[in-house]
Amino acid sequence: MTEARSTPSLIALDWGTTAQRAWLLDDAGQIVDSRRPDQGLLSTTAGIDPHDDAARARAYESAFRATCGDWLDAHPDLPVIACGMVGSAQGWADAGYLTVPTKPAYGPGSLTPVAHRDGVVHLVPGLRVPSRDAAAGNVIRGEETQIVGALEALGDPVGQLTLVLPGTHSKWVHVDDGTVLSFATAMSGELFGLLTTDSILARTATEPVRDDEAFTRGLSAGGSGRGLLTELFGARPLVLDGLLDPASLADYVSGVLIADEVAHLMPDSGPVALCGSADLCRRYSRALAVHGFEPTVLVEDVTARGLWHIARSAGLQETP
Amino acid sequence: MTEARSTPSLIALDWGTTAQRAWLLDDAGQIVDSRRPDQGLLSTTAGIDPHDDAARARAYESAFRATCGDWLDAHPDLPVIACGMVGSAQGWADAGYLTVPTKPAYGPGSLTPVAHRDGVVHLVPGLRVPSRDAAAGNVIRGEETQIVGALEALGDPVGQLTLVLPGTHSKWVHVDDGTVLSFATAMSGELFGLLTTDSILARTATEPVRDDEAFTRGLSAGGSGRGLLTELFGARPLVLDGLLDPASLADYVSGVLIADEVAHLMPDSGPVALCGSADLCRRYSRALAVHGFEPTVLVEDVTARGLWHIARSAGLQETP
Repeated sequence: MTEARSTPSLIALDWGTTAQRAWLLDDAGQIVDSRRPDQGLLSTTAGIDPHDDAARARAYESAFRATCGDWLDAHPDLPVIACGMVGSAQGWADAGYLTVPTKPAYGPGSLTPVAHRDGVVHLVPGLRVPSRDAAAGNVIRGEETQIVGALEALGDPVGQLTLVLPGTHSKWVHVDDGTVLSFATAMSGELFGLLTTDSILARTATEPVRDDEAFTRGLSAGGSGRGLLTELFGARPLVLDGLLDPASLADYVSGVLIADEVAHLMPDSGPVALCGSADLCRRYSRALAVHGFEPTVLVEDVTARGLWHIARSAGLQETP
Repeated sequence: MTEARSTPSLIALDWGTTAQRAWLLDDAGQIVDSRRPDQGLLSTTAGIDPHDDAARARAYESAFRATCGDWLDAHPDLPVIACGMVGSAQGWADAGYLTVPTKPAYGPGSLTPVAHRDGVVHLVPGLRVPSRDAAAGNVIRGEETQIVGALEALGDPVGQLTLVLPGTHSKWVHVDDGTVLSFATAMSGELFGLLTTDSILARTATEPVRDDEAFTRGLSAGGSGRGLLTELFGARPLVLDGLLDPASLADYVSGVLIADEVAHLMPDSGPVALCGSADLCRRYSRALAVHGFEPTVLVEDVTARGLWHIARSAGLQETP
């Protein structure tokens, strides 16, 4: 579908801590135009006193206009929706959280409006698992929109489903008939970055070369029962003993981490769906296969789809 | 015992990657003098081409003389012994490894002599568990001397013993009648540093204040079965939910890590001994107590004692 034939009907943003993505969507939810500026929250608010609310609002408005100003000028009445950390206490406004179990349906009034010079931006609330009896709960912002988009892309599956969103902080979301029951977060991706950049393992490694066999060996070690803290360190003696190429250390560590994550967070039974980059989905599929799971894999970026879906259910656009 | 009354009989060094410690020991193994210069391997060899063997040897000799030169001048015939990474392939000379199971007895000929201008330094070999069938083995350098010192301090215990040396890379050493059967390494201490310095948890924390109760809660979370990668991340929502003081986050994370390490590496049964700093021994004792162990705690620094013991068994000094 080209811009000439479609009618823009929504500006949608995924605005996180380090990145911003913006889409111009037509009246069928198709992407007419998209942008990915260097305008995460950190760069947007750099140098701004966090207690100066007016200065902070101006910074967000300015960053928003820098990305979407020409779209707004060309289509002044378009509704605008945004998800991600922009709706956090450090964001443009605090959009709060919905507490699970909940159906992420986002009816009218569920979004938080932020007025600016040219109109209103509607912020999507996050989801939270409350901490109980001092046991850690959990919060997400942005992934609730991925969940909505993924469920729609999967044809709104009935019954139980475990939806896995691998990434820096991987999410394991338990869904039943479209209701989010609970979710957990594993910081495997962040730990992978720390270990392969700053730890003694980084000193043992050389410039990484993809090595699927090393990943498989890491998967096996990660499920050995000696524990993550021991198996991660094991990459070093393997290299010193000449049994692991220093260029393959990163894939080995990836295998150890993902094996440990999957072993602890996989469901007892039931279908699993993966939604993420092709490379991560491939890795998690292999780790899940060790335990007999054959996950549905969704490598589509579902965030724009989720924002479109939420905007419609919240009544931001007239339903055709 | 004062210097005036005792006779120096050994110069002993623990020379690692980032630190160097040196002791002048008398003929009863008592410490007459000690030094802790900023002369780890990294600073010793900074700017030296690693392939220029002669330049590297000069750098080690110079660093050695800077620490011990006056001792050598006053007592020209003293034997010198050194353990740690100084005996590695990147060290002064490669002292190799003894392969477990082995009794770390270090008889005559077991040390690697390195000649220098004023005499000879004797390097202690490390211990290794060979990697087998692509499963990670392990190596230690310096800790073999701690093991020797700890076993002597414990009165050379008979039968099975698990000796735990907590630290940056914690060692769990299985000993039977003085023979080291095997050992494992958990990188809990290094991970603690990375997480509390560079991760999203560091951004959630404030300047740490000791909080034993937070450590206990971390211990409990670390044994919950959701896995290390999830429970570590859990510190963040606990702070966001107001259930954990941001100043207590470090103690909570310490508890999660140590609980996971202990749960995976503790023996099925038998006595456990801890040898390390008072603070770490206290933490590991509490984690072990959860599983019914009452470890013997040795907070004495046993490295000098171990070096003295090895020097005697290797025949560096005449036995009185």
